[in-house]
Amino acid sequence: MFLLPHHDGSELYLPDQTPSLGDTVRVRLRVPLTGYGRVLRVYVRSLRDGEPHYDDASRVPHDVAASSGWEWWEACVSLVNPVTRYRFLLEISGNAGSEWHWLNAEGLFGRDTPDVHDFRAVCHEPAPVWARRGVIYQVFPDRFARSASGAASAAQRATPEWAVECTWDTPVSFEGPDAPRQFYGGDLDGITERLDHIRSLGATVVYLTPFFPARSNHRYDAATFSCVDPLLGGDEALIRLVDAAHARGMRVIGDLTTNHTGDAHEWFQSALADPSSSSADFYYFSADHAIYASWYGVPSLPKLNWTSAGLRERFTAVIAQWLQPPFNLDGWRIDVANMSGRHGAVDVNRAVALQVRETMRRVKPDSLLLAESTNDAAADFDGDTWHGAMTYSNFTRPLWQWLARDDARVNFFGTPLAGPNRIPAEQFVELHSVFAAAFPWQVRTQNMIALNTHDTARAATVMIPGGLLIGLGIMFTMPGIPTLFAGDEFGLEGVNGEDSRAPLPWDRLEDRHHELRDAVAHLGRLRLKVAALPDGGFRWLYAEGHVLIYVREHASGSVLVVAARAGFEVELSGHLVCCSTDGVPELWGSGDVTADWSADAVRFRSGGPGVRLWALPGVSV
Amino acid sequence: MFLLPHHDGSELYLPDQTPSLGDTVRVRLRVPLTGYGRVLRVYVRSLRDGEPHYDDASRVPHDVAASSGWEWWEACVSLVNPVTRYRFLLEISGNAGSEWHWLNAEGLFGRDTPDVHDFRAVCHEPAPVWARRGVIYQVFPDRFARSASGAASAAQRATPEWAVECTWDTPVSFEGPDAPRQFYGGDLDGITERLDHIRSLGATVVYLTPFFPARSNHRYDAATFSCVDPLLGGDEALIRLVDAAHARGMRVIGDLTTNHTGDAHEWFQSALADPSSSSADFYYFSADHAIYASWYGVPSLPKLNWTSAGLRERFTAVIAQWLQPPFNLDGWRIDVANMSGRHGAVDVNRAVALQVRETMRRVKPDSLLLAESTNDAAADFDGDTWHGAMTYSNFTRPLWQWLARDDARVNFFGTPLAGPNRIPAEQFVELHSVFAAAFPWQVRTQNMIALNTHDTARAATVMIPGGLLIGLGIMFTMPGIPTLFAGDEFGLEGVNGEDSRAPLPWDRLEDRHHELRDAVAHLGRLRLKVAALPDGGFRWLYAEGHVLIYVREHASGSVLVVAARAGFEVELSGHLVCCSTDGVPELWGSGDVTADWSADAVRFRSGGPGVRLWALPGVSV
Repeated sequence: MFLLPHHDGSELYLPDQTPSLGDTVRVRLRVPLTGYGRVLRVYVRSLRDGEPHYDDASRVPHDVAASSGWEWWEACVSLVNPVTRYRFLLEISGNAGSEWHWLNAEGLFGRDTPDVHDFRAVCHEPAPVWARRGVIYQVFPDRFARSASGAASAAQRATPEWAVECTWDTPVSFEGPDAPRQFYGGDLDGITERLDHIRSLGATVVYLTPFFPARSNHRYDAATFSCVDPLLGGDEALIRLVDAAHARGMRVIGDLTTNHTGDAHEWFQSALADPSSSSADFYYFSADHAIYASWYGVPSLPKLNWTSAGLRERFTAVIAQWLQPPFNLDGWRIDVANMSGRHGAVDVNRAVALQVRETMRRVKPDSLLLAESTNDAAADFDGDTWHGAMTYSNFTRPLWQWLARDDARVNFFGTPLAGPNRIPAEQFVELHSVFAAAFPWQVRTQNMIALNTHDTARAATVMIPGGLLIGLGIMFTMPGIPTLFAGDEFGLEGVNGEDSRAPLPWDRLEDRHHELRDAVAHLGRLRLKVAALPDGGFRWLYAEGHVLIYVREHASGSVLVVAARAGFEVELSGHLVCCSTDGVPELWGSGDVTADWSADAVRFRSGGPGVRLWALPGVSV
Repeated sequence: MFLLPHHDGSELYLPDQTPSLGDTVRVRLRVPLTGYGRVLRVYVRSLRDGEPHYDDASRVPHDVAASSGWEWWEACVSLVNPVTRYRFLLEISGNAGSEWHWLNAEGLFGRDTPDVHDFRAVCHEPAPVWARRGVIYQVFPDRFARSASGAASAAQRATPEWAVECTWDTPVSFEGPDAPRQFYGGDLDGITERLDHIRSLGATVVYLTPFFPARSNHRYDAATFSCVDPLLGGDEALIRLVDAAHARGMRVIGDLTTNHTGDAHEWFQSALADPSSSSADFYYFSADHAIYASWYGVPSLPKLNWTSAGLRERFTAVIAQWLQPPFNLDGWRIDVANMSGRHGAVDVNRAVALQVRETMRRVKPDSLLLAESTNDAAADFDGDTWHGAMTYSNFTRPLWQWLARDDARVNFFGTPLAGPNRIPAEQFVELHSVFAAAFPWQVRTQNMIALNTHDTARAATVMIPGGLLIGLGIMFTMPGIPTLFAGDEFGLEGVNGEDSRAPLPWDRLEDRHHELRDAVAHLGRLRLKVAALPDGGFRWLYAEGHVLIYVREHASGSVLVVAARAGFEVELSGHLVCCSTDGVPELWGSGDVTADWSADAVRFRSGGPGVRLWALPGVSV
């Protein structure tokens, strides 16, 4: 149980969500009146130019404080830097006189704590509202759908020299040299034709993995950044797709490799052929021009050298071009952002990120900038640079570990020991806290959170029966932008990323899996309608073994989430969660989780796996 | 008890202590054969340009492995970046099949862990050997000693306009406006005259707080960086002091403010008088030139603007000038390094640090660069920049908390709740681990570790009776450069930094406190003689309540340290620590800690506070 002092960066606790540098903002803390200890004094410690500074907090006068079981404290803190670290110091009356606790983004500590876990307030503009409230649907173009015209033109053309031509139902080779070469011929018009399906799921943002010409089915080895692959339908097909999406109130983001290009890229070909070419310094060639640096030593992916002024200029133009007419993309997802600008003794990663962000701010302020960093991404995501991370440590992997089948063994980004190992709910909370807390709250709510992606096994393969619905319930209600990988709505399976990219077998899918599709659609609509889901605070109430209970809190109404991977029964006191003898409205559910509400407690139980959401009253300070 | 896998960055575990960028180095892990679990496989995960990479480790063939109770694993790791993060992944046979643990610099985890706690290997040159093996003796010049010639010239001169003239035994005003103005007239020749005393303590490095002309007794408000304050004896007195120190095989480092100057500084006076002066952009003036930024808003300490190319050039000359003839200083301690180059939206802190380091490398490669960062310093100290930190979170404060008198209440760098709160030994280990582990091992062994400084209360005031000797025993045997504040050898007291700066009452001291002086001298000589103390690994053996036991391990011989703040009795098994029926030689001790050695265990006991060191055999891999 978590009857503990709480703060997060949401508007209940930081009423000014878009502060400017130099502003003095209110910062709030809530403290339980029972079960924790009597709080005598509260201070907020913030860093100013790297040095700690303390501000006194005072109790917020509050009529209903006594009945709600909580009191609120508030301090004024000056945001001296664009990203300001802060934490709370609480003096409490303990067993042996007064004691003190720190509260930082990782939790409560009865000892000094490093600054790295401090809360952080960000003075930079957040991601656009359409992104923060949105639901992302990820499409891998070669495998999503083949349009009628695409099929017709495919019949005319020769097989690309790099490709192994496949029919839509050819089995995927999920390892070995053919994996990147199997070519299925999905195209952008195929996506356009299915936009209504995507929209019917409540998804609002289509995220396309790369669409540039390349020599692989994944196209992360771009041969140019100046046009759309004709195999996908060319520039016109992208324009049609984006127009059609915009006409439906949807957005489209692309996928760009700032770390490398393909070896077929015009910049690289010119650099390779002529050491005096204008793009020669875009890459890391040896002095004799005989060898060059590449992603993981894969020669087809030459590494870009961001210390080159020429590269910076050309790449800025690429970033801008696709956001502007006639293409009008709504943002970018950046591939291996964690490696970009890092090479041996060179580390200009932050400068790359700042330049991409600044370019987007300039040419399309309403655009979204996400960046891949599969591992522990927090150090590179402080709110100054990328809006949010496509990462796995704080959500996907802990969720897999909690909902894993006993026999689940999957490769996860090269970790040599197959995972996941099954963990109890307590450890899910710990893992999420450790990894998510390291992001500023603003970034945390803008991170992509996914059950799986094109780079992982499918959740349906990893999770217990019914786990996918539980996972969806959690993904749509935890902080972050829910991200579906095409096929999640059909419960598709896959043992690794390649297998998960298998073409969607539309003719065998469209009339099935209504429960999953309805769940996705319902949860996506909830997210648009209920402000607590994108913007509310996030507070754990209970975590033990099979059960996770948390609440998203907002002035306009809150959402309670109970998720269980097996049968359970637990009673929470009214101090922890709102109580009502009239009952509480349900918002959505799967499985047989039930709640018995009474005047001073609520009892949850379930006979097996399930998840359920209730609407709680709003929280007022 | 700590019968657990262990690694640190010392040469037992990282045999190449001065690797170059791009080298492949051996990395070792030791694992207990009993009490932990059978280790099936070990991997080393390192980051390459920000992305995880795994290398297999294998068991080191070892003749005596079985008898020593440990096995060693070794992997080869490429140092792709100047600072390479790495950690261990251990697969062990557990209760329910195989389980895995991560080992990082903070300890063992049965869950994923953030990168911030990884071990780090550094490809930059370490601090000079004289510093790594040395003992620092900190002197606050106005309060250490007044030379005969200084006294004579003082009788001739007028009182400086900023000063409140004091005699050597005037009580210190330890708060209020007179605190920085009380002028006692200690001088550099006074230090030179006492060099033999300092040397008799085993100290090898004299660290002088600022010696530039200023308008305060602390002189952190420099009026120029171009000469030594005439009140201290001027340039010639510094030359005499450094020459005399060098003649005795000792070194001298100075103290420089990169964050600010005094408002009397020639750069500032010129900037203030004329917005078009060449130094106008050395500071942060408002557009109308009416106001300027300053340290903590104190107008006498105008903040330096490191985005100014002119400042960078001038400051580089200052750094260099004092390291060269005729002054020949051996290094710098940088004041409030954590704030330097940080101001609002500007953060060029790392660039400042790199420039200072590079300048020193260029003009005097054998010099030492320490930097103040009182709070959690780790983020700024990665081995690329400052050699080591003058910080308090990882040593001074936890030590105070463990050795505190019941009634100790002291102000500690502005923390609003008076500390320390008394903590058990387990929490000392936790605090040290959390804060020290965040430094690369190289930096950790180069951090200043102190019982107290000119900015804190005196340890003798905070600690239990006998605590000072226990603290000395710990300070001289934990990783870091032991740092004495003049007067520690006499057990001087002080309730805060100002009080701790009281003039040394030599006439009442010199024939007393032999126990403290002898302890310091003995421990300093041990550090020079026993390689394990500056360079050995560091492994906790036991920590509970009143007792801390650890070992510094080295191929040439190890040192066992048992420290107790009260009576205790504990038995450690032979797996944990070397055993011997012949007994083990003592190196030093205070109080009545004893050890009974037998063939398979050792029993330590004490009737009260104490500390004792034993020489253990060297560790071979």
